[in-house]
Amino acid sequence: MVTQENSIPAPPADGNTSFVLQEIEKVTFEERPVIAPKPGQVQVNVRQTGLCASDCHYLHHGRIGEFVVRAPMVLGHESSGIVTAVGEGVTSHKVGDRVALEPGVPCRGCKTCLGGLYNHCSKLEFAATPPYDGTLATFYNIHAGFAHKVPDHMTMEEASLMEPLSVAVYAAAMQGQVRAMQNVLVFGAGPIGLLSAAVCKAYGAKRVVVVDVVDSKLEFARSFGATSTFKPSRADPGEDRMEASQKNAERLLQELGDDLIENEGFDLVLECTGAEPCIQMGCWSLRPRGRFVQVGMGSSNANLPVTRIGVKELIFTGSFRYGAGTYETSINLVANRKIDVARLVTHRYVFHDAVKAFDATTRGKGEDGKTVIKVQISQGEARL
Amino acid sequence: MVTQENSIPAPPADGNTSFVLQEIEKVTFEERPVIAPKPGQVQVNVRQTGLCASDCHYLHHGRIGEFVVRAPMVLGHESSGIVTAVGEGVTSHKVGDRVALEPGVPCRGCKTCLGGLYNHCSKLEFAATPPYDGTLATFYNIHAGFAHKVPDHMTMEEASLMEPLSVAVYAAAMQGQVRAMQNVLVFGAGPIGLLSAAVCKAYGAKRVVVVDVVDSKLEFARSFGATSTFKPSRADPGEDRMEASQKNAERLLQELGDDLIENEGFDLVLECTGAEPCIQMGCWSLRPRGRFVQVGMGSSNANLPVTRIGVKELIFTGSFRYGAGTYETSINLVANRKIDVARLVTHRYVFHDAVKAFDATTRGKGEDGKTVIKVQISQGEARL
Amino acid sequence: MVTQENSIPAPPADGNTSFVLQEIEKVTFEERPVIAPKPGQVQVNVRQTGLCASDCHYLHHGRIGEFVVRAPMVLGHESSGIVTAVGEGVTSHKVGDRVALEPGVPCRGCKTCLGGLYNHCSKLEFAATPPYDGTLATFYNIHAGFAHKVPDHMTMEEASLMEPLSVAVYAAAMQGQVRAMQNVLVFGAGPIGLLSAAVCKAYGAKRVVVVDVVDSKLEFARSFGATSTFKPSRADPGEDRMEASQKNAERLLQELGDDLIENEGFDLVLECTGAEPCIQMGCWSLRPRGRFVQVGMGSSNANLPVTRIGVKELIFTGSFRYGAGTYETSINLVANRKIDVARLVTHRYVFHDAVKAFDATTRGKGEDGKTVIKVQISQGEARL
Amino acid sequence: MVTQENSIPAPPADGNTSFVLQEIEKVTFEERPVIAPKPGQVQVNVRQTGLCASDCHYLHHGRIGEFVVRAPMVLGHESSGIVTAVGEGVTSHKVGDRVALEPGVPCRGCKTCLGGLYNHCSKLEFAATPPYDGTLATFYNIHAGFAHKVPDHMTMEEASLMEPLSVAVYAAAMQGQVRAMQNVLVFGAGPIGLLSAAVCKAYGAKRVVVVDVVDSKLEFARSFGATSTFKPSRADPGEDRMEASQKNAERLLQELGDDLIENEGFDLVLECTGAEPCIQMGCWSLRPRGRFVQVGMGSSNANLPVTRIGVKELIFTGSFRYGAGTYETSINLVANRKIDVARLVTHRYVFHDAVKAFDATTRGKGEDGKTVIKVQISQGEARL
Repeated sequence: MVTQENSIPAPPADGNTSFVLQEIEKVTFEERPVIAPKPGQVQVNVRQTGLCASDCHYLHHGRIGEFVVRAPMVLGHESSGIVTAVGEGVTSHKVGDRVALEPGVPCRGCKTCLGGLYNHCSKLEFAATPPYDGTLATFYNIHAGFAHKVPDHMTMEEASLMEPLSVAVYAAAMQGQVRAMQNVLVFGAGPIGLLSAAVCKAYGAKRVVVVDVVDSKLEFARSFGATSTFKPSRADPGEDRMEASQKNAERLLQELGDDLIENEGFDLVLECTGAEPCIQMGCWSLRPRGRFVQVGMGSSNANLPVTRIGVKELIFTGSFRYGAGTYETSINLVANRKIDVARLVTHRYVFHDAVKAFDATTRGKGEDGKTVIKVQISQGEARL
Repeated sequence: MVTQENSIPAPPADGNTSFVLQEIEKVTFEERPVIAPKPGQVQVNVRQTGLCASDCHYLHHGRIGEFVVRAPMVLGHESSGIVTAVGEGVTSHKVGDRVALEPGVPCRGCKTCLGGLYNHCSKLEFAATPPYDGTLATFYNIHAGFAHKVPDHMTMEEASLMEPLSVAVYAAAMQGQVRAMQNVLVFGAGPIGLLSAAVCKAYGAKRVVVVDVVDSKLEFARSFGATSTFKPSRADPGEDRMEASQKNAERLLQELGDDLIENEGFDLVLECTGAEPCIQMGCWSLRPRGRFVQVGMGSSNANLPVTRIGVKELIFTGSFRYGAGTYETSINLVANRKIDVARLVTHRYVFHDAVKAFDATTRGKGEDGKTVIKVQISQGEARL
Repeated sequence: MVTQENSIPAPPADGNTSFVLQEIEKVTFEERPVIAPKPGQVQVNVRQTGLCASDCHYLHHGRIGEFVVRAPMVLGHESSGIVTAVGEGVTSHKVGDRVALEPGVPCRGCKTCLGGLYNHCSKLEFAATPPYDGTLATFYNIHAGFAHKVPDHMTMEEASLMEPLSVAVYAAAMQGQVRAMQNVLVFGAGPIGLLSAAVCKAYGAKRVVVVDVVDSKLEFARSFGATSTFKPSRADPGEDRMEASQKNAERLLQELGDDLIENEGFDLVLECTGAEPCIQMGCWSLRPRGRFVQVGMGSSNANLPVTRIGVKELIFTGSFRYGAGTYETSINLVANRKIDVARLVTHRYVFHDAVKAFDATTRGKGEDGKTVIKVQISQGEARL
Repeated sequence: MVTQENSIPAPPADGNTSFVLQEIEKVTFEERPVIAPKPGQVQVNVRQTGLCASDCHYLHHGRIGEFVVRAPMVLGHESSGIVTAVGEGVTSHKVGDRVALEPGVPCRGCKTCLGGLYNHCSKLEFAATPPYDGTLATFYNIHAGFAHKVPDHMTMEEASLMEPLSVAVYAAAMQGQVRAMQNVLVFGAGPIGLLSAAVCKAYGAKRVVVVDVVDSKLEFARSFGATSTFKPSRADPGEDRMEASQKNAERLLQELGDDLIENEGFDLVLECTGAEPCIQMGCWSLRPRGRFVQVGMGSSNANLPVTRIGVKELIFTGSFRYGAGTYETSINLVANRKIDVARLVTHRYVFHDAVKAFDATTRGKGEDGKTVIKVQISQGEARL
């Protein structure tokens, strides 16, 4: 159970009220000064911040892999807001612009950045990844190029969902290269899996089959991008796990119809669970030269059918956060009514109930999978 | 030990003397009729046939995976020869043309073939893969498009080496997309590994590092395409194997210089062994977005660092035989003196000593790795 | 005026009634024998054949470019039908299969075909292109791989429209690489332009702007894929034509909104007219690295802004007929209700009124642009 | 004739002696202050600067296209030097590093830059392009990412040639995608054409044919990358120019041998002249799907065979300056002895003779084409 140190008054209007992880399981509201944006930056009054599993992980464990919280850190990284000041040299933005925040800002000067692969920049500064503060705060300064303008008819809540949607766009459209009339298999009906399915549908995919083991999640998936769903069988005790994965793949192809058999499998797999049986089943479900994108993160290593990958020339790759242009595409998809992201939101809290939001996120994990928690941080606009 | 049924007279000039696998460990010479080419085919008087591990595998085991020898089958598939007749409708060839044979002929009418991926044709007919006869015979009929003309200054021995060279060209240049000034890591100093290294060098690669555990093979590699070589350490007893693979990768990068560290690893891995430790070390040696091509075939499954693949967005794919245009490129590489393939040949036999050639191939396997066995099948030309 | 030689009885059920171009402006019905399919072929009872400008061109001029009609030739190449016999070795089809015919059959053995670019095969045999007979006949034999099965719920009329739709799919999706949320500019509201616009919409394009000079065609376009339309101004007398083209492009961008200005232009141009002013305007409308696909054929040469192409690194390419997989994608698009091709059909005739169909096609040319003429060739199925 | 205002003393060691274009045909040496590098920048003591046609154009005309010199501007942009100070936050460089300067620095924050296409950044600041000062000065400050370290064994003169070599690498390898065993046609035997030919050779091209009308330039080309050369015929009076271009292409293909005829043309054209007859001949020389890269800049518009481009699906694109990674590749090519750039240098001057260097560059233009003028700006190192 999380202890909230200060009893929570409504956040004051003019300071930078920040929700700070002090140490494991201990968070506080701090009043920090509002800082002017540096050259090239904009200052944003944050309006909505979503929570995700990584925020909870820092709260309960103080680290994710090699990223260790060594000093107090503001949490949160899925945010939207309103520009309140622009730094020197910024001509692209003006006060009042409504923006979705891209929380990872690269150095922009190394050869990785200059080559267009900025998500692989070794100097990337990511909100709420130690030692960088996050966006559960009333004000946040960010390089203007990472504060993406959204149209007037998009709500701040939708805008804050551009972060997970960008993950899905990058996985499905950039790394997965999904195209119209393709057959796509998505593992995992959590937020990223669901959004990935919706992106594939918006790109005109013929079939988007979502795989999960929870019936309620599969039911929701069928209303959110999936053309059909599949529940894999678990391996029998003593059964070879790889064979069980292969059988699940064969059963799926047989259920789906002659054209997939003739095609020798799916065109694209988006693996959003990180679970070994899913990764294996994905490899057995693809046609020759089919693409496999590892999106989810689970155990570090997995037993893979390398001979099949080799002989069928599968293209097995990964997807790390998002890349150039994915926020713009995400905003366009929602602004043009291709994806109704707001349907993913299940719980809404005001800022001073942030602790409750964390509790709900922690509980929701693994349950119905589509728990998206929104924290309304600042007011002042009718349409949130 | 192989039993050769008939005591071997010199092959007669006019019949189709064929070296036939009757059953496991039992081969015979058979006099078969010389057959006229069908429409679209050419008839070739075979001059040279190389042996490879798969030929020996059929001889000793009667099968490779699901391909089982159920009836007598002519062995051999790495061949060159002279066109002796052309079938109806063939305008591309004439009697006397000197050709390298591409031993796998696809159906050419399915959507896989029409899409340019004919090596994945489910109806591919491959020489010396059951139930199709091979090319250890004095005459062989083949679709004209798969009898590739070679220039006059190329020997028949070189022409018969276009088969393994095409495997290397397809792996390195097509699937690996090697380009000038790249850093390439090749696992395995057998014929395919060595040829792959030579292809990378011919394409202008900056570094081509060959990995093997046999010193004599590494020494030869340094004279055949490799800019340097590396001998990995074996895992200590009780050491985690994945960690041992990772350590080998780190040691290699440190040995090679600052630019590779700055580049965060190699641009391309060509894995020609199929051994799990090599596959693992390859994954740990690549830069973000680096390519990994699985060329060798070993155990069906392997434990892979999937999170690393995912986070670094490695492109892990395979290479199966060869594809459109690889024979043409291979012939050009040798004709233009970019690769001296004949240096790989270590043993040469005449046709009626074919059994000795098989014995040598079987013994040579795993030994010095560069054993290429050539069988001179027919005479009649000064330059063989 | 076309002379029809024999007064037209209803086509007999068992012969192969064929509509034959005897010489310029002179056509006849001929009773030809029904021929058994060769190995690899299927025999198709043709049900529907559409007419296009090229059929009329042969009728009135006896040639298109270097293709000259030197002997009587059956016209027609946009067809669907029912399989009535299968040749030796065909396992993919059975009698009764409903198929859309792909009218160009390549040699399948040259390196162009094997490389997956069969539309560039120098031995391609195209229906109703001299000297090959076309499909305005009750029976037509074709290689099985080019008789594409359509689902039961697709009408024969829709199936016959897979030919022009494949042209559009190849142009927009293959050569144009259209993707979701892109901005696309299509020149020409004739059948190919309209179908290209519809393909872009099905692939999720954000904007599909259709350009034409005829108001009624633009009005139809807005109901068939176009998100908006544009009518370019003609150059003033004495005005530099290139400058006029540039001005039209600038006016279009200004009309469409800030995001296109910020994007520096369209992502993709599909030029379906072949007219110089359109080609020029297209070049001025693209963003840096934007793609231009020349689909229409007009005058052989045109004055192009090469410095702009060079400096902006535009990718200017063409689109010739269709390629591997485009029929399959086209059938999927219609079967999945993404494109309602039947709306393009304006006139319908029975076979013995084929001459009237030609008259209508000839008259319709250049008029309302969406004239698609269908000839019902054979009966026997409720849903035509 | 250029007037040099101040009689030229040797440049002092501590000021920033700069060669300034005051107005058309009027240049002076100015003593400017040496400025500390800004955060992210390095300060470079310039050692060598090459001159090119654009420097002379500003000198004689005061403008290039829309870029107009409105205030005194330092000339020069092809430079190398030694780092003398590093700005705040720079960890990649240290004092004493030997560097080649990439003279165009983009904003790095717009979506064009973030997408990896920084040469198309609308805010690019390019040395010696108004209003930005150039590198004919003893000191120059530049963003660290654009000061590319060169190895010790590379001379400062070679390092200053990385600028034109990068243009060639970008054109041939990035935009042209040249690969081993391809057939390449290069128009123009000036510095960029010659370097492009040399790059293609280093990438393993089979044929690199250089086209020019000056015999002495063709002779040099044959010693610098070209495998053969071609001198096109001029159009006869009254001859259609497009037909003359087509005839030149046909003559060239016939001269080169059967394989090119069978291939239906070259794989790649690099057009480095900007002249209409060359562009036309290039289009007629390519195989189906061949690539054409417009590198040179000539007249704004040209008459092109659009129907051929369309029907053969040529890929006609451009090449603008250089892109991500081209400097690194260029440095590697020279450091690994693949290209001997110093052979291009024909004249060498010390700094106070800069006016003579401009005179020589102006005269040399169009003469023997390989005039590369080097100005030794600073001393202090044995190997310049």
